[in-house]
Amino acid sequence: MSNSYVLVINSGSSSLKFAVIDSKNGEALVTGLGECFGLPEAVLGWKYQGKKTEEAIAAPDNHHQHAINRIVGLMESLGFTKDLVAVGHRIVHGGEKFTSTVRINDEVLTEIENLSDLAPLHNPAGAKGIRAAMQAFPSLPQFAVFDTAFHQTMPQKAFTGAIAHELYEKYGIRRYGFHGTSHYFVSREAAKMLNKSIDESNFITVHLGNGASVCAIRDGKSVDTSMGFTPLAGLMMGTRSGDLDPGIIEFLLKKGWTQEEVFNTLNKKSGFLGVSGLTSDARGILEAMESGHAGAKLAFEVFTYRVAKYIGSYLIPLDSLDAIIFTGGIGENSLDIRREILTNLKLLGFVEDVEGNEAARFGNAGIIGKSELLNAVAMVIPTNEEFVIAQQSVALL
Amino acid sequence: MSNSYVLVINSGSSSLKFAVIDSKNGEALVTGLGECFGLPEAVLGWKYQGKKTEEAIAAPDNHHQHAINRIVGLMESLGFTKDLVAVGHRIVHGGEKFTSTVRINDEVLTEIENLSDLAPLHNPAGAKGIRAAMQAFPSLPQFAVFDTAFHQTMPQKAFTGAIAHELYEKYGIRRYGFHGTSHYFVSREAAKMLNKSIDESNFITVHLGNGASVCAIRDGKSVDTSMGFTPLAGLMMGTRSGDLDPGIIEFLLKKGWTQEEVFNTLNKKSGFLGVSGLTSDARGILEAMESGHAGAKLAFEVFTYRVAKYIGSYLIPLDSLDAIIFTGGIGENSLDIRREILTNLKLLGFVEDVEGNEAARFGNAGIIGKSELLNAVAMVIPTNEEFVIAQQSVALL
Repeated sequence: MSNSYVLVINSGSSSLKFAVIDSKNGEALVTGLGECFGLPEAVLGWKYQGKKTEEAIAAPDNHHQHAINRIVGLMESLGFTKDLVAVGHRIVHGGEKFTSTVRINDEVLTEIENLSDLAPLHNPAGAKGIRAAMQAFPSLPQFAVFDTAFHQTMPQKAFTGAIAHELYEKYGIRRYGFHGTSHYFVSREAAKMLNKSIDESNFITVHLGNGASVCAIRDGKSVDTSMGFTPLAGLMMGTRSGDLDPGIIEFLLKKGWTQEEVFNTLNKKSGFLGVSGLTSDARGILEAMESGHAGAKLAFEVFTYRVAKYIGSYLIPLDSLDAIIFTGGIGENSLDIRREILTNLKLLGFVEDVEGNEAARFGNAGIIGKSELLNAVAMVIPTNEEFVIAQQSVALL
Repeated sequence: MSNSYVLVINSGSSSLKFAVIDSKNGEALVTGLGECFGLPEAVLGWKYQGKKTEEAIAAPDNHHQHAINRIVGLMESLGFTKDLVAVGHRIVHGGEKFTSTVRINDEVLTEIENLSDLAPLHNPAGAKGIRAAMQAFPSLPQFAVFDTAFHQTMPQKAFTGAIAHELYEKYGIRRYGFHGTSHYFVSREAAKMLNKSIDESNFITVHLGNGASVCAIRDGKSVDTSMGFTPLAGLMMGTRSGDLDPGIIEFLLKKGWTQEEVFNTLNKKSGFLGVSGLTSDARGILEAMESGHAGAKLAFEVFTYRVAKYIGSYLIPLDSLDAIIFTGGIGENSLDIRREILTNLKLLGFVEDVEGNEAARFGNAGIIGKSELLNAVAMVIPTNEEFVIAQQSVALL
């Protein structure tokens, strides 16, 4: 019996991530990254059977196309071509149009490009990756998996901004949410682990990586999430502010800051980096705390406190809670951050399972605490967005 | 024995509210309002023993001074002069400098003016009112009561923005919170009603008026609040957006909106007015809902859902909860809005006390619901900020 491998592509404005995923078990057979697109130092690297290879992309322009053409050759040389059944593209913004994964045709591609207004950096790059892949793999069906799709089940009261409704009607300004594929994956995995039907499962999923978001899931469906119209909203992140008093922006603009300075500060110089004055990396924050760095300690406290407050607020759209699920680079690995969040949840009855929390690292799932008050557990589930992209692509074949 | 009356003054940029308050029981003997300052139609009106009087202010300029001079005459003609023991001023911003009510001297007045950067509309107007009152009542001690003072007990993790720390160091950008006098008052009243020491009381106070804010109170002290650096943050309000995805502002500015258009929309055309497309007034929203107005229904749902989410999040800084306390024009009178908020709190165990909720209107305090899960009640306490201003002024005599 032949394999069902999917080439998963995440095409950014100056980079392209790819992986060959076995759609049956999620195993990544090759993973790779092209970087510095548009610059003379553009490179393409990949990892196969533990060995890393890196090559310069010697073309003067259209590095996306050249990278994908090189991937065709790589597939051939590794002997994957006969097992590849689809190409799955991670696309950031599906607007209100795409509520699930779709097979790509000209119309879909046009729609993705039309949504560039909502994701000006990401959707054009995603479309570029699709065009290049369609040319390089003309015989393979291509699928688009959207970061926003899972959240399209949010009720109107959750996605409506408390702003002039014309902004929604004219520009589509509303909460869309992102990280949908991750929230989807870990909620399904958690239901399996808890022996529950996903349609009867209620979760708060907490994706903590360099970007971070929380999602309230009722009966398996997203009913609220912390990212909003853009991925700048919600939680404090590596370098992003999250939700903000809009009056701060007005104040800075009146002080003579340019728009670029303001939004560069909120996107690139805030979050862990901004509060600590040290680093955007959670591991660096924890290390610096150990050696008594006051800014790092404050960043740790502000971050964990805000995550806990979001969890408290997401009890509202739920009728019951089965589990809080931590995932993402920080959520999967930082037992100190999870511990502090659980400590913040004491009034909700959560108590850490110290052994469980210490065991759930480096790709291990597990229960890390529980609340008798709410009859719920806290757990860690490593996310695997590529696996979802592969599975959902194959499901539509 | 003589009385202890306090003249309470709330001086705005184009208006001046005043009241004579009996500091022993909070009774308002006279209440008045000067409006349209700076315009030819400037007027001063007051209500005494049920009778309303209105007079034009015939002066060409400095309407604040003329209004206060006229109030001197009014005090004399009503026979209050001998009982007046102090003038209490409501001042919006006390920054990090003022953590409680203070007697005003030149230094205090200068500090209030120095804080104008943080409250450019309010503090200069407050200072103007102080100067006029000092001139008009030279023999009376004057006190400043700050909207921000009660919140100065917030821990650093609650008041620190998830932004570049330079913004705090350079401009003082942090969470200050407002409505402090109201949150202070209703928490003290609630402790009395529940026969608890305020130092051992844990509350979430919900001030819902045209402006709206929530406060988490641990052992009688504010530990978090929803307004931030400015009163635009936090809850959805009559015309204000509350917390916002900062990316929305960037999007609008890139679309060519001017800064003025953006912040005018967020301050004056959002909230109830913006979502409903109809009115900023909660009563109007409820009436329109009755007749099937979809925008009004959505505004009602978004508002109540967001209040409930804030309540859920404010369980985090507390070790236990004694009561959720509703106050402010909407909180004291709208049983439908309170009912919907309690319904949203079902997972926290709250159940409405229907009779209690219906009885708590038009100035009546009472229990409107309870949660056996959290061992807490929900209640209504009418606020009385003028009483606090009078009491705290007299306490410092």
